[in-house]
Amino acid sequence: MISKKIEEAVKRIKPLDEKLLEQTQKRLDNLTKPLGSLGRLEELAKQVVAITGKEKPELKKKVIFTLAGDHGVVEEGVSCYPKEVTPQMVYNFLRGGAGINVLARHVGAKVVVADIGVAEKIDVTNPEFKDKKINFGTKNFTKGPAMTEDKAVKSIEAGIELVEEELKNGIDIIGTGDMGIANTTPSSAITSVICGVDVEKVTGRGTGIDDKMLKNKIASIKKAIALNKPDKKDGIDILSKIGGFEIGGLTGIILAGASHKIPVVIDGFISGAAALLAYTFQPTVVEYLIASHCSVEQGHKIILKHLGLKPVLDLNLRLGEGTGAALGINIVVAGCKILAEMATFENAGVSKKME
Amino acid sequence: MISKKIEEAVKRIKPLDEKLLEQTQKRLDNLTKPLGSLGRLEELAKQVVAITGKEKPELKKKVIFTLAGDHGVVEEGVSCYPKEVTPQMVYNFLRGGAGINVLARHVGAKVVVADIGVAEKIDVTNPEFKDKKINFGTKNFTKGPAMTEDKAVKSIEAGIELVEEELKNGIDIIGTGDMGIANTTPSSAITSVICGVDVEKVTGRGTGIDDKMLKNKIASIKKAIALNKPDKKDGIDILSKIGGFEIGGLTGIILAGASHKIPVVIDGFISGAAALLAYTFQPTVVEYLIASHCSVEQGHKIILKHLGLKPVLDLNLRLGEGTGAALGINIVVAGCKILAEMATFENAGVSKKME
Repeated sequence: MISKKIEEAVKRIKPLDEKLLEQTQKRLDNLTKPLGSLGRLEELAKQVVAITGKEKPELKKKVIFTLAGDHGVVEEGVSCYPKEVTPQMVYNFLRGGAGINVLARHVGAKVVVADIGVAEKIDVTNPEFKDKKINFGTKNFTKGPAMTEDKAVKSIEAGIELVEEELKNGIDIIGTGDMGIANTTPSSAITSVICGVDVEKVTGRGTGIDDKMLKNKIASIKKAIALNKPDKKDGIDILSKIGGFEIGGLTGIILAGASHKIPVVIDGFISGAAALLAYTFQPTVVEYLIASHCSVEQGHKIILKHLGLKPVLDLNLRLGEGTGAALGINIVVAGCKILAEMATFENAGVSKKME
Repeated sequence: MISKKIEEAVKRIKPLDEKLLEQTQKRLDNLTKPLGSLGRLEELAKQVVAITGKEKPELKKKVIFTLAGDHGVVEEGVSCYPKEVTPQMVYNFLRGGAGINVLARHVGAKVVVADIGVAEKIDVTNPEFKDKKINFGTKNFTKGPAMTEDKAVKSIEAGIELVEEELKNGIDIIGTGDMGIANTTPSSAITSVICGVDVEKVTGRGTGIDDKMLKNKIASIKKAIALNKPDKKDGIDILSKIGGFEIGGLTGIILAGASHKIPVVIDGFISGAAALLAYTFQPTVVEYLIASHCSVEQGHKIILKHLGLKPVLDLNLRLGEGTGAALGINIVVAGCKILAEMATFENAGVSKKME
């Protein structure tokens, strides 16, 4: 039951122009360096050219969307932090003290913080805060669907709106981020269903749970899937039954980014689950995605493999919030600067390779 | 035959204080994130604290030393670029058009360019250029030693001097970089000898040579080792017989950095060979090193394993110049900012992990 707004975004996502990739490689090959010697930086530059249609894209306006939501399944004891941490961290984001704030400042990115389903009212007037609350947390999906289909649709639409609203200020590259105590639980459930992989293989320790809690987490996910029977080909069905509001919102961010020809740098496991959902609507969306890093959370590798994405960084991160995306954005920017700023063999008077 | 200047630098290199590592981990564990969830960033921050002895190190002055030298072995046909490219690239560095210039600007680092053994006179008055020329290139080491022992010592001393001269402007973190047509050839020779690994396993395609040239390159290295018989435990002997001036200079940079308690971010294969030489003088030096990335050049993995270093990035780079070091520095800075700028659980009013 996809809405008109979602459908329009999905329809605008077109395959990248192969010719632009080839032309850009030719440009890169004329710069003063051995052919292909800047490896991944060259690949990233090519991808951004093909996404944006710009010959030498400048990625000045970097925006990380960090979406917060709560999860009814927290009452099953799947996290080692209390759910109060979700709103507490939203306040921390807005005061600039969280990991994502530090890393976003480091790379010159703006952080747009949105409440899309926190279980408490967020009481602020900060201009960087966006109130997109759809509900006070999801329901416990071991007892029924996490949310109604209508609210699943609304969460994706909220993500699309966040991008559209920010477009007025300009966006050259997007990073995705999440905050939500217990949100590796729905992310594992989504990954298991869409990738068709056993729950055990896609369920990790999240914020650091012990063996007993991990066993309980796996059992809760299995119960939820057995009870709700999500259809692996239907993104809205999956999101409503075993998802979360911030995951739906990030799905919207991803679809909107691709539909507006903006490269989207996805963060870790939660953002990965959102990318899987976006993929159910339009597989072409992956051409617009850059996987910033490979998370410690074990299901993330399976997501990246399913989407055919190769992570830029592998720094043993598992914080979320968009922290990996921030660092990934900085590498993408480096690639684009190589393309725009390096001298050619001709300009620099440097001899080319001998034949 | 190590000189007094080198000996003094070597003697000042002391093991890191384990207590500082522990104290810093405690500080990191009190920041608003799950324990250990920033993985490698946390490890890097701890290492920099232990190296510098500063509680919250600020890495403002970032200096990349890019040393250029030529290699007599180029006449054996081991590179697909003519040796004129070495001085041409030095001019390119000084005009700001090379890969290292772009990436150093991106991360806010200064590039100090030095001629330590280019086969042509470099005719400039640029203040960022350092004339440390020891000779007009090395001799062809398939026919005898690459340089005299005296010049090997002088090349290491030149590296130490470069750091000492720049210390007047302040250095918080060092990156190493190289330029020298054919310099993967001596680097492979050094790696084979010090790591005790077959020449075939440590010899790659450098700037992109074909199968025939690769065979010839391997044969040249084998011939040089058989003829010169370097002593694997004697860094000066190895450097003089099968090394290069920029490699010796980088050995000096590494030793000087460690001796002044400055973290040294090493670039790729050539810098790795210099690190191996530094290690022959003082194995403790590795505690001061951060391996920025894993190069495509196959011998680099073997160097990193020998030194027990884990690369921060893996971006399929093989350009040298310090390009990988520039990107690596930026990740190290990110780690230090996490330590210095993130809020604690107490300050932010965020609940801690439940017991």
